[in-house]
Amino acid sequence: MPDTPYQQLEARMARLGALNQATEVLYWDMAAMMPSGGGEARTEQLTALNAVSHTMLTAPEIPDLLDAAEADTGLDAWQQANLKEIHHRWLKATALNERLVEALTRASTTCEAKWREARPAADFKSILPELTELFALVREAGEAKAEVLNLSLYDAMLDDYEPGGRTADIDEVFGDLAAFLPGFTARVLEYQATQPAVVSPRGPFPIAKQRKLAESLMKQIGFDFDHGRLDVSLHPFCGGVPDDVRITTRYDEADFTSSLMGVLHETGHALYERGLPASWRSQPVGQSLGMSTHESQSLLIEMQVCRSAAFLAFAAPLMREAFGGSGPAWELDNLNRLYTRVEPSFIRVDADEVTYPAHIILRYRLEKAMLADDLALGDLPGAWNDGMKELLGIVPPDDRVGCLQDLHWYDGAWGYFPTYSLGAMTAAQLYDAAKTSVSGLEQSIQEGNFSPLLAWLVENVHAKGRSVGPSDILKQATGRSLDATVFKQHLTARYLPS
Amino acid sequence: MPDTPYQQLEARMARLGALNQATEVLYWDMAAMMPSGGGEARTEQLTALNAVSHTMLTAPEIPDLLDAAEADTGLDAWQQANLKEIHHRWLKATALNERLVEALTRASTTCEAKWREARPAADFKSILPELTELFALVREAGEAKAEVLNLSLYDAMLDDYEPGGRTADIDEVFGDLAAFLPGFTARVLEYQATQPAVVSPRGPFPIAKQRKLAESLMKQIGFDFDHGRLDVSLHPFCGGVPDDVRITTRYDEADFTSSLMGVLHETGHALYERGLPASWRSQPVGQSLGMSTHESQSLLIEMQVCRSAAFLAFAAPLMREAFGGSGPAWELDNLNRLYTRVEPSFIRVDADEVTYPAHIILRYRLEKAMLADDLALGDLPGAWNDGMKELLGIVPPDDRVGCLQDLHWYDGAWGYFPTYSLGAMTAAQLYDAAKTSVSGLEQSIQEGNFSPLLAWLVENVHAKGRSVGPSDILKQATGRSLDATVFKQHLTARYLPS
Repeated sequence: MPDTPYQQLEARMARLGALNQATEVLYWDMAAMMPSGGGEARTEQLTALNAVSHTMLTAPEIPDLLDAAEADTGLDAWQQANLKEIHHRWLKATALNERLVEALTRASTTCEAKWREARPAADFKSILPELTELFALVREAGEAKAEVLNLSLYDAMLDDYEPGGRTADIDEVFGDLAAFLPGFTARVLEYQATQPAVVSPRGPFPIAKQRKLAESLMKQIGFDFDHGRLDVSLHPFCGGVPDDVRITTRYDEADFTSSLMGVLHETGHALYERGLPASWRSQPVGQSLGMSTHESQSLLIEMQVCRSAAFLAFAAPLMREAFGGSGPAWELDNLNRLYTRVEPSFIRVDADEVTYPAHIILRYRLEKAMLADDLALGDLPGAWNDGMKELLGIVPPDDRVGCLQDLHWYDGAWGYFPTYSLGAMTAAQLYDAAKTSVSGLEQSIQEGNFSPLLAWLVENVHAKGRSVGPSDILKQATGRSLDATVFKQHLTARYLPS
Repeated sequence: MPDTPYQQLEARMARLGALNQATEVLYWDMAAMMPSGGGEARTEQLTALNAVSHTMLTAPEIPDLLDAAEADTGLDAWQQANLKEIHHRWLKATALNERLVEALTRASTTCEAKWREARPAADFKSILPELTELFALVREAGEAKAEVLNLSLYDAMLDDYEPGGRTADIDEVFGDLAAFLPGFTARVLEYQATQPAVVSPRGPFPIAKQRKLAESLMKQIGFDFDHGRLDVSLHPFCGGVPDDVRITTRYDEADFTSSLMGVLHETGHALYERGLPASWRSQPVGQSLGMSTHESQSLLIEMQVCRSAAFLAFAAPLMREAFGGSGPAWELDNLNRLYTRVEPSFIRVDADEVTYPAHIILRYRLEKAMLADDLALGDLPGAWNDGMKELLGIVPPDDRVGCLQDLHWYDGAWGYFPTYSLGAMTAAQLYDAAKTSVSGLEQSIQEGNFSPLLAWLVENVHAKGRSVGPSDILKQATGRSLDATVFKQHLTARYLPS
């Protein structure tokens, strides 16, 4: 029996999915393994892969296959969702011609490589030409997508990271946060000042010991080293593919806490990838949802779970054992204060969860302004520093800890940043629902048993793949749409006296 | 001005070359980094990449482009050589349909993964089904190529590894060796017995120190860590791409000598890749020649140079320093005897250069027999052990150190083995010519200065890419075709008293 149109689309998507997986491994390698001199060759490899993928996705037979498959009344719900995904991807791909795809891939890998030099040198000017070229291409691609999707420019770019996400919704929920946070942060700082000073554990903390502790906690939480790795890169991330998830961190021998929480954060991403529906691995519907869902999984593990009193009661003895720590710095109360310390700071990825949204709101405002031509790229450093002053009351001493700190824009990822704070709110809402739904959840975490939590997450989030959208996942799991309420409740409960 | 047919072919080859480079990086990752659970997904990735490459190489426009380009009288010598390469690759690719290419890729990655379990378990039976399936596909592909190339089955398979190589030539030169070596080996063993016993340096030799010494010698010889890495894998190899060469080794804490010489061997491969003509990177003519040329470069560095008295005079103090070695085992005379010790043994990759050809002649005979249906795959272990008994007088205790020791057959590489000994003879002939041509060459090596040697190799071998064939490279560099004479002279000078 010949393949149905739907089956033919599936076969093409399986091939395309495998090529995209190859691309993922090459990106991981570029960040974690590749020597600097390999950059140009890697750019060619990625450019070729992206161009081939684009050609496959926009093959002339696709429109007819889509039409025929969409007329097929025998598809089940997953197949229908898969078909919808395929259609959406095809639509976006047709907006871009091969020239633009190639130019984008080349410009983003070139700019990313340049960023790896410019950031440590705090030299924004040196990267401005590459960023300007990349930005023009990103905008061109965004405008083309906006047209086929009938969306505004920013919403079209957001769609790459947050399916169905809209500026109007983000403005509302960010507005709520922006109104709440400054006063709340002031109250937290005031309260913290009345508490015993935080004593930082004294290093050095050898990297081998940090790594061992990190791996042991990863395993305990559910990371499977037969299907993944932990390595080092300048900018920590979760890469690879669902059956081979590669997370990275960076170590600081003077401070183990930042790397450890980073690893736990990426572990949350990794568990999501591993938990995706295995029988749909090769298809679009089997892949992870938007970045806010992804970030909700990392933040649920890091912020909701691993900075909780329950988790620290479990982990504190392991930390003491790992580093031979003793004395006041290693007492549970002190570690709790250490892991929930609030302090305005320059680096987003090191920020506490109370000040973190300010970093996001800054980037969201700036990228909207740049896309609206209200801010020239060359004026970014100044605007960044002004925004930091306004939102957090501090000014970065240089661009290394200012507008050069994050890879995203220099890699072509515009419209990405808001998903971090959407993820934080989603995480709060999901964890709240999990605690209601699974009795004794916090107790089991305190005992180092993460299985009940992971089972709930797999069932309610991971195993759904892209069969439903981010907002439906949340509604099905928590009974309500996303808003800032539960997140604000969580912050209040954790950071202010009850 | 529109692209000429030749230029259009170049553009297609550049894209194809980049995809092949991506494949190389994924193979390296599979051997050096990938967790076991990533195997199935990786097979899909490689299968997709190979299928796409095959489709590109056999695109319906290619024959007309080839015809038109071949009628172009304005091509220079490199372009003509490039075109010839493209034509040859296209011809071989047309012999294979997409189904066969996919099946081969899938079967070879599956069998390779199985081998990684079967080898340590010394369990040949467990891998026989996968090997049988792979062998049938390898033969099918070989027969198809034999037809389009108008060659015998074995010569067609050899062509993948040794362009222009012929069984008749190999039979002759291997016959010469097979007649010379048994008597010679007996004389060497007899002579060695009159010499002071070799004292092995006592370990343990920590891996970190071995690695540091290896990296330092690699750098000294000319390996550029901005364009390459050294890692660990079960089966040492040189992978990656010319601008990002990845070599691997395996460490034994009880014996540093084997890993060190292995690293220097792979360094020879790596220098060749790095020395290929940079302006032809993306084209077939810019790639490395056959495996005998590749192996000549690794063996020239390892066998001709790094086991010479001149090199050891330079390296012995570094070895002593690396491991804090002192006493009789670390004396130069003893190290010389250690590094030129001859002893029949089971493992090819650990064999000395005198007994090594016997390992190759065994494999060459066996693979010819299996392809001629004179030997059933299931009877391989017995035939292997019989051959070892006949050629080297020893019988492996199990298949781990017998017919399971090498990846090649289990990865689909049939017709590959003879290139090792062709490489050894080529290395001897090239190094002999280099010593004649570059005055004071051995003295500079004794002083740790490898630049004159590397410059000669780049000029006479590396930078030629595939612009001339293996046999012309040799004739141009040494004034004669390949035969066993210089190799035999080299062995006599090194292993018997003068």
